[in-house]
Amino acid sequence: MSIQKILLLPDSFKGSMTATEICAILKEAIHRHLPAATVKAVPVADGGEGSAACFLTAMGGESIRHTVLGPYGEEMEAAYALLPDGTAVVEMAACAGLPLVGEDRDPRRTTTYGVGQLLAHAAGRSRKIIVGLGGSATNDGGAGAMAALGVRFLGEDGEPFVPTGGTLSKIVKIDAGGLLPALSGCEVITMCDIDNPLCGPRGASAVFGPQKGATPEMVEALDRGLLHYASLIKRDLGVDVLTLPGGGAAGGMGAGMAAFLHSPLQMGIQVVLDTVGFETLAADCDLILTGEGNLDSQSLSGKVVVGVGRRAKPLGKPVLALVGGISPGVTGEALRREGVTAALSITPGPQSLAAAIEDGPENLRRTADALFALLGAGVGA
Amino acid sequence: MSIQKILLLPDSFKGSMTATEICAILKEAIHRHLPAATVKAVPVADGGEGSAACFLTAMGGESIRHTVLGPYGEEMEAAYALLPDGTAVVEMAACAGLPLVGEDRDPRRTTTYGVGQLLAHAAGRSRKIIVGLGGSATNDGGAGAMAALGVRFLGEDGEPFVPTGGTLSKIVKIDAGGLLPALSGCEVITMCDIDNPLCGPRGASAVFGPQKGATPEMVEALDRGLLHYASLIKRDLGVDVLTLPGGGAAGGMGAGMAAFLHSPLQMGIQVVLDTVGFETLAADCDLILTGEGNLDSQSLSGKVVVGVGRRAKPLGKPVLALVGGISPGVTGEALRREGVTAALSITPGPQSLAAAIEDGPENLRRTADALFALLGAGVGA
Repeated sequence: MSIQKILLLPDSFKGSMTATEICAILKEAIHRHLPAATVKAVPVADGGEGSAACFLTAMGGESIRHTVLGPYGEEMEAAYALLPDGTAVVEMAACAGLPLVGEDRDPRRTTTYGVGQLLAHAAGRSRKIIVGLGGSATNDGGAGAMAALGVRFLGEDGEPFVPTGGTLSKIVKIDAGGLLPALSGCEVITMCDIDNPLCGPRGASAVFGPQKGATPEMVEALDRGLLHYASLIKRDLGVDVLTLPGGGAAGGMGAGMAAFLHSPLQMGIQVVLDTVGFETLAADCDLILTGEGNLDSQSLSGKVVVGVGRRAKPLGKPVLALVGGISPGVTGEALRREGVTAALSITPGPQSLAAAIEDGPENLRRTADALFALLGAGVGA
Repeated sequence: MSIQKILLLPDSFKGSMTATEICAILKEAIHRHLPAATVKAVPVADGGEGSAACFLTAMGGESIRHTVLGPYGEEMEAAYALLPDGTAVVEMAACAGLPLVGEDRDPRRTTTYGVGQLLAHAAGRSRKIIVGLGGSATNDGGAGAMAALGVRFLGEDGEPFVPTGGTLSKIVKIDAGGLLPALSGCEVITMCDIDNPLCGPRGASAVFGPQKGATPEMVEALDRGLLHYASLIKRDLGVDVLTLPGGGAAGGMGAGMAAFLHSPLQMGIQVVLDTVGFETLAADCDLILTGEGNLDSQSLSGKVVVGVGRRAKPLGKPVLALVGGISPGVTGEALRREGVTAALSITPGPQSLAAAIEDGPENLRRTADALFALLGAGVGA
């Protein structure tokens, strides 16, 4: 069977290559060895930094710039993506991301307020908004964003304020009655690749607080703040976010999105496949190429590779995963049960993890070159 | 294009898998995913231990057992292969191999006499003999083997004796007039994968002596012995073996084969390809699968993978190499110039060399499974 159309759906290899870089390397190898083949590249976004760009690469559209408040309340320009079908993609990393604070990391003081401003702007022109969680510098449970959207967090003095991680415990009442009306007509989908709960030892503060600058003492205080926040959400909105898987994503933004905007938290790969219209794209393709940094037992429960496989299986389309590594437990049989035809590692021989990460682009280039040289030479069944 | 016939021509992965084991793993994966495909397996022999078995696996034939003298002159049973076309394959490791002496390694005393006895036996029933060098415990320049074949090495007392590595210097005259007549009607081909000269710093004693048990002082004496041997060969037979590439193979057996039996020293892969009739086997196959432990710059000068590629290129047959590792200098382009379509590493991710060697069978199994699952799923150009 001649290969005429190839669909690329790779995840990033964390710390080594972005999904967009991976698509470029694969495209180059395909064009070298299968010059007649057409390639559709969909770099997979996980919600974190670069997610909006991934959607723009895959679908086209425009980047909308807007002036908002940054993580420390400073004015800054941030952008979100407006796709050709009218869907907006807002990544919280655009104005509440960890890289924006540099060394000045303090999750007690950072805010997601700007994210709310971006959402408000997007709600003015979209009926569907995808919100990407991940890479945040915040621990405010999304309270800042909700304040920007009209939710009133009242303090002891009865006055509304914008809570941050360190002041969540000062909220005495939540009034969501003033939520921006434009949002109620919007479908809001939240991309969230983790299932951590809001509080406790696996919660936002304990697991992600330290990388945002929290000391052990701060972690305890932040966790108490989120617990208090959750109890008020329960009391004033009637929503239980404490047990929500992913509630602890992005400093509790997951919980905020679910509680105030009734947004479902979905795996990035599912949102991507839905948004790009996977079934239509895959219908006339001869090969689907995916990949992720490491195929491990977690992958089998549904990260990018298996997420693609499950959707490809009913279509009967072959799925090849190029990966940085394959853990021993992940057998070819287990992968095929999930619709993944085959997985090949790009590792060129014995090397350290550090070298594999450093050499990622070269390793992928070499493997893709070999693979498509083979397919281009007329080897097939 | 449907894959109907696959030709396997792998080298061993030294220390990890024999070529025969590799063939078995590849066959199993092919049968699982391409049940209709026929497979011709030719495990590539390099001349060392297991070479006769490789030829038997590839071509059929019988193993001929014969009682000869072992490395220390003890009686032992050794075997050689008699192929269906009448060619005999004698590997010197069968009765002069390093594993036969265990810890009792002394290259001053070990002999290749038994190898000569096997050759004499084979000459009685074959018109073509392939002799495999490699894995020897000896440093006698093949003098022992030649003595068994009728060459007389005379000492100071005028009496013939069987020189060993430690007594080569005692030869005062060589009389090759009594060489077994049956041999003169025989084509004798020597498999020899190294190009080390007989003497000097890259010679048999210096490079391979230590692993056979030679101390630095012994190495010097052994090297002087081979130099003396070469000077007598020059004087009494008129053959210069000092500059012969491969003369230093197997304790100087390469020089002995060339000087006394006028046997060309050839790369194992060439002998294998000639003997199995590569061009005929390849003519109707759809894919040639080869491999070696590590593809490095040496490989490009013509080890197994490139040896196969060069012969496959004029036939326009695709060649895929599955290897343990690919060195950075070995590009896809360089390989394709040599007729190798593609090379893929079996390494499943970052791991140490020791782990890669230990896990070789599992790594190959996984990679072959993925590869043939992909080809079996109808992916091809």
